[in-house]
Amino acid sequence: MPELVAVDRWWRAANYLSAGQIYLRDNALLRHPLAPEHIKPRLLGHWGTSPALNLVWAHLNRVICERALQALYIAGPGHGGPAMLANAWLEGGYSERYPRVSLDERGVTELFRQFSTPGGVPSHAAPQTPGSIHEGGELGYSLAHAFGAALDAPGRLVACVVGDGEAETGTLAASWHLNAFLNPATDGTVLPILNLNGWKIANPTVLARLPESQLVELFRGYGYAPVIVGGDVGVDPMTVHEAFASALDDALDRIEGIRAEHAGDPDAAQPAWPMIVLRTPKGWTGPREVDGEPVEGTWRSHQVPLAGVRDDPAHLRALEEWLRSYRPEELFTEAGAPMPELDLIRPRGEARMSATPAANGGELLRDLLLPDAAAHRVTPGTTAESTRRLGGWLAEVIRDNPHDFRLFGPDETASNRLDAVFEVTSKQWMAGRLPVDAHLARSGRVIEVLSENLLQGLLEGYVLTGRHGLLASYEAFIHIVDSMFNQHAKWLEVADEVPWRRSVASLNYLLSSHVWRQDHNGFSHQDPGFLNLVVNKGPGVVRVYLPPDANTLLVTAEHCLASRDHVNVIVAGKQPEPTYLSYEAAIAHGERGLGVWDWAGTEVDGSEPDAVVAAAGDVPTLEALAAVQLLREAVPDLRLRFVNVVDLMRLRALDEHPHGLAAAEFSAVFTDAAPVVFAFHGYPSLIHQLAYRQPNHGGFHVHGFAERGTTTTPFDMLRMNGLDRYTLALAVLRHVPGAELRHPHAVAHLAATRERMRVHAHEFGDDSPEVTSTAWLDRLIAAARD
Amino acid sequence: MPELVAVDRWWRAANYLSAGQIYLRDNALLRHPLAPEHIKPRLLGHWGTSPALNLVWAHLNRVICERALQALYIAGPGHGGPAMLANAWLEGGYSERYPRVSLDERGVTELFRQFSTPGGVPSHAAPQTPGSIHEGGELGYSLAHAFGAALDAPGRLVACVVGDGEAETGTLAASWHLNAFLNPATDGTVLPILNLNGWKIANPTVLARLPESQLVELFRGYGYAPVIVGGDVGVDPMTVHEAFASALDDALDRIEGIRAEHAGDPDAAQPAWPMIVLRTPKGWTGPREVDGEPVEGTWRSHQVPLAGVRDDPAHLRALEEWLRSYRPEELFTEAGAPMPELDLIRPRGEARMSATPAANGGELLRDLLLPDAAAHRVTPGTTAESTRRLGGWLAEVIRDNPHDFRLFGPDETASNRLDAVFEVTSKQWMAGRLPVDAHLARSGRVIEVLSENLLQGLLEGYVLTGRHGLLASYEAFIHIVDSMFNQHAKWLEVADEVPWRRSVASLNYLLSSHVWRQDHNGFSHQDPGFLNLVVNKGPGVVRVYLPPDANTLLVTAEHCLASRDHVNVIVAGKQPEPTYLSYEAAIAHGERGLGVWDWAGTEVDGSEPDAVVAAAGDVPTLEALAAVQLLREAVPDLRLRFVNVVDLMRLRALDEHPHGLAAAEFSAVFTDAAPVVFAFHGYPSLIHQLAYRQPNHGGFHVHGFAERGTTTTPFDMLRMNGLDRYTLALAVLRHVPGAELRHPHAVAHLAATRERMRVHAHEFGDDSPEVTSTAWLDRLIAAARD
Repeated sequence: MPELVAVDRWWRAANYLSAGQIYLRDNALLRHPLAPEHIKPRLLGHWGTSPALNLVWAHLNRVICERALQALYIAGPGHGGPAMLANAWLEGGYSERYPRVSLDERGVTELFRQFSTPGGVPSHAAPQTPGSIHEGGELGYSLAHAFGAALDAPGRLVACVVGDGEAETGTLAASWHLNAFLNPATDGTVLPILNLNGWKIANPTVLARLPESQLVELFRGYGYAPVIVGGDVGVDPMTVHEAFASALDDALDRIEGIRAEHAGDPDAAQPAWPMIVLRTPKGWTGPREVDGEPVEGTWRSHQVPLAGVRDDPAHLRALEEWLRSYRPEELFTEAGAPMPELDLIRPRGEARMSATPAANGGELLRDLLLPDAAAHRVTPGTTAESTRRLGGWLAEVIRDNPHDFRLFGPDETASNRLDAVFEVTSKQWMAGRLPVDAHLARSGRVIEVLSENLLQGLLEGYVLTGRHGLLASYEAFIHIVDSMFNQHAKWLEVADEVPWRRSVASLNYLLSSHVWRQDHNGFSHQDPGFLNLVVNKGPGVVRVYLPPDANTLLVTAEHCLASRDHVNVIVAGKQPEPTYLSYEAAIAHGERGLGVWDWAGTEVDGSEPDAVVAAAGDVPTLEALAAVQLLREAVPDLRLRFVNVVDLMRLRALDEHPHGLAAAEFSAVFTDAAPVVFAFHGYPSLIHQLAYRQPNHGGFHVHGFAERGTTTTPFDMLRMNGLDRYTLALAVLRHVPGAELRHPHAVAHLAATRERMRVHAHEFGDDSPEVTSTAWLDRLIAAARD
Repeated sequence: MPELVAVDRWWRAANYLSAGQIYLRDNALLRHPLAPEHIKPRLLGHWGTSPALNLVWAHLNRVICERALQALYIAGPGHGGPAMLANAWLEGGYSERYPRVSLDERGVTELFRQFSTPGGVPSHAAPQTPGSIHEGGELGYSLAHAFGAALDAPGRLVACVVGDGEAETGTLAASWHLNAFLNPATDGTVLPILNLNGWKIANPTVLARLPESQLVELFRGYGYAPVIVGGDVGVDPMTVHEAFASALDDALDRIEGIRAEHAGDPDAAQPAWPMIVLRTPKGWTGPREVDGEPVEGTWRSHQVPLAGVRDDPAHLRALEEWLRSYRPEELFTEAGAPMPELDLIRPRGEARMSATPAANGGELLRDLLLPDAAAHRVTPGTTAESTRRLGGWLAEVIRDNPHDFRLFGPDETASNRLDAVFEVTSKQWMAGRLPVDAHLARSGRVIEVLSENLLQGLLEGYVLTGRHGLLASYEAFIHIVDSMFNQHAKWLEVADEVPWRRSVASLNYLLSSHVWRQDHNGFSHQDPGFLNLVVNKGPGVVRVYLPPDANTLLVTAEHCLASRDHVNVIVAGKQPEPTYLSYEAAIAHGERGLGVWDWAGTEVDGSEPDAVVAAAGDVPTLEALAAVQLLREAVPDLRLRFVNVVDLMRLRALDEHPHGLAAAEFSAVFTDAAPVVFAFHGYPSLIHQLAYRQPNHGGFHVHGFAERGTTTTPFDMLRMNGLDRYTLALAVLRHVPGAELRHPHAVAHLAATRERMRVHAHEFGDDSPEVTSTAWLDRLIAAARD
């Protein structure tokens, strides 16, 4: 059929352009015999994966045109950049984004020159790549991104090419099971296309070496209806085109059937979605042999199949032969534009995968309707489970935004006390259900699966296609997604510099069940180190919030859900804790990001305090306030200032982070010379890392998690790490010159009480009311009123 | 058969002891009616997973006795602590390790009281747990640990219970494919037992809700021969015992067959190893209903099925009924020891899974035979690819230690230039092979799979069972295992305090293809932040080395492979770089960990230098030396000291890390007041984090990775981040008081040259010989000789 002729021609054009990007700096359309001076001085790039990526793109274009599909293309294999760029250029989408790379010979030359070169574009799909929401550098996240992009987009087909290399990664292997969460009636479709080109950098891939019958069982076992198509080195591409076109048509017919069935029956069983295994030689159509070694169809075609082309006339000839094998004269007009014959399968406008708004999610982004969180405020002085209050508000957010906000969590939404959301929604679940199940439904705004990797991948795919979400996790185990966080933050850093990329919703983390309240689960569950990772990323992107109470958590969450292009990390506890600030005071405190709590201090106007007691984090705030109260009672003449930090980035210098403080502002809070006893939620050295350029940094004495943990009581955890109220109060006395000497009884009393509390915990297996009661807080607040 | 009667009795005893640990502080054997004062004040622990873990343990004991097996038990499900402890106590192994927990009623009471309580033991398998190499806190690593433990241990059966919760994690999902790497002729056996209890904390599990036929296809697709056994709530346990015993016997017969076949034919195809799916109700034999809600067989039995037992008489009665349902009078003697009837299936000595030396790997550990690395030394002044030199030595290590040293890498052993190892060994690979394959064999000391998670899990399992290894990875992507690293470091921290745990080999990382030489791969491949994670862990455990050249890398690697109980992180480049130190000088430098390089500085004896130029990392050292040479030529009267840091922990204070420096030592190197321009491999703030308590820290000006990256040239990467020689030289002039004013021409010249180099890179796509040549280094060395 003529369409397949056009598909083949498109494929050849994309292959030509992919190879050209790696090799050529001139003579881009081979109007002249190839000469050494046409070759780039430094040959960089990855050829191996390109032909299959191009083949899939070309075939998708046919069905997009025939069936008026809205498709999004996800290129999972590493370093698929040349293919993505080639197809975007052929569609015209690239030139629209980058007019300098025009649809003519000069533009082709520019396309080639910019590739993998200083000031140019990377060798993998990246924020600069039109049509991509998926960074092709680190591997394994394609399928989770695809499922995230498909959620709540019933009209969308997400075609996800999975590389057989990345298929060996943990995240990808688990991602196949995400079909248990995709509802054909309300979500879009993911069509996985596993490309078995057989090789990684230097090894065969595991999946490529499974017997075919076993491979079929594997994907049937994952719940798909797999079809295998492909061909070996030397096969006529047209036979592969015919087989793949037929497999694609069958898959799309089957998808239509599934969607129709589920539209009619919202309780229909989880379908066996189609998936295609495409077996093609790595570096297909490239040089078959180089210097006597097989290259096409082997790992040797992974990067640059022909090296030293400038200096080796035989390699130069081989390259010219290879490039001319695509018959460029049939592919490009005299001016260098794509031949009109390609128009037969070229989608138009936003139907082009290189120009779909889904791949520039900000084009689709709608502001969330954010209900007033004030309705969930807590009366200051009373106790609340902060995350439970947040859950009440999140239930309203979900109610008011039923199509573009989702909550993701690893089996812990209820454990993190956000379960008020189940009053308005359910956990989406397409697998089998039983009468005993609670809050499971075919459709719902919560997705829970016991893999932080899958959740992060889903949320990234969801946010980058223009929606909103929140991932709530145990603090310690968020490290599982460290690398994914890194890559997403890098994506946002780069996207910010790409003029046509529109803003997307921030990626929001709520870290609960945190280090100071995992006393019962033990050392493996105690790790506040994610913050250390986060602060390394671009200051334009990362934000860290440590709200001290429920009201501040509410205002922080409001701020984060309304924000754009950030990664927001909120650390907040789920256990009952006092409320210090009114909702209005919390708004003001959240806006400042840090501040002096006059009511908690014992300063006298006009003179510097003897010491500053500072806190960041809910439990540290409680302990630091208790320390202040202990000192009020034991050493009434001590002049203390109390500082609370919500926004950790406020500690940085002004030129290091947009939230950073100028030296004068920093001094106004932390003084120029008073000792600062700082109670911090995480590793103490992080505060030094952030504040080392600030004045009075030398006077900071930070208490935090000292990597001491076990199964014990909450107080004992604090004591082990020197973050308990007694240790903090003792630290103040130690660092205020002369105070220890002047108040030996206070010192002895504090140390003895600390030891008595330790003994109590170890004897009774629980903390003494002396440390769990918050009666002292009432005294402190009452004293402030006087 | 009588053995199954004993199995059932063992199972009941272990279930009784598991429940007892959660609830009882007294009346441990129910000699009296249960009263509120017998109940713990704080009910903590996880019942749900225990019955199945106990069942598997009991059945394994039968076959260990019958077949004289050497078995290792890995408990994958979260919080399986009560079960592990119960079985260890029943075997007598626990009392041998902890005589206080004796084999009598007092011991049972102690066993119960210590559980999940301050000063006691955690609720999951942990270093304190006899018989365990696997922390049960974070989930997903059991199967990779099991495969690692089985490598090179042909006589070992590793029984790995996989929870259906953890089966949703990425690492576990990918781990099933590890059968592609296990050789039945030379390695041990992994018997996976997937326990489908159906539930996580609050949700069903995906695998439990797959139709049974699909589940079978999935595991056949993974390459196993699955058998499904089990029973629902209310089923007679004896029918499950019979079915499981039969499945276990069949599996072991099949394993014997596989091993025999492969012993006879070293090229036999990858076998379909047996695996068992055990479907049992969560919290089986616990309370069927509580307060009208179903509990047994639901998520409600995850933790403490009956709450408020002290205050609720009905719950107290239900607990007593539950505990008495195990008929403790049949399980324990009058003195409180296990009944002699259990002896029928109780293995003896080291055959007990609670006492197997494999689970206390140090008992099996043999020192590596380490060949003299001096044979691979590089002549100072010449250029070498550091990791290639290391590869030559590693080949000898492999040759001399053919059974207990392995190299793990994600498809990058050759890319990281360690391919000399393939002269003496191969990559182990049991899947299909083709004639074109290179360095693949049924047996070999290298394992490559494109999952850092799998490699880390294999290496952990290998090391914790008494062997040695090295994981070589691209630096950026090692973040994928951040969380696994955290948990392993925590394991080592705790194990160090467990008296009977013997030392194990250190876990060694080689991070190559690092941030400064990923210019061609772009921003996603540029991340030096793993070090920030590492330094947070216990100072007794973590070590970070940044050897500046090939000789220092060799001596560092020698040191690391000989060390014990550490995590060693070595960062080293693979690109050609100069060699500064002779092998002997490298030994001395490595031993000091940091030091002044007199030959590179321009100090005059007896007076303080004008500035210190310091470097940590190979590329920073080269740039810092080049900066010194630029300054020698431009400002000859400047007195500079050059410091190189190999062992990053030397920067910490003496009381913070065993490698830390006392203030006086630190001053002797970094002076008291001279400005220090520090060229660092990673994020600059890490140096401040480490050194903030040291003298002259305020004078440190650190240049490193400023989170600016892209596809460009090596020099341009340095320039973008302010780590290039020109910027470093300018920083020296800026920070030496008055130097900028005195040497305006030098400042202008340096800035202009930097810009000229930038333009060159962007114009030609490659760096100018002016920055790639090392002729200046010859001049510097020659000057030093004069």
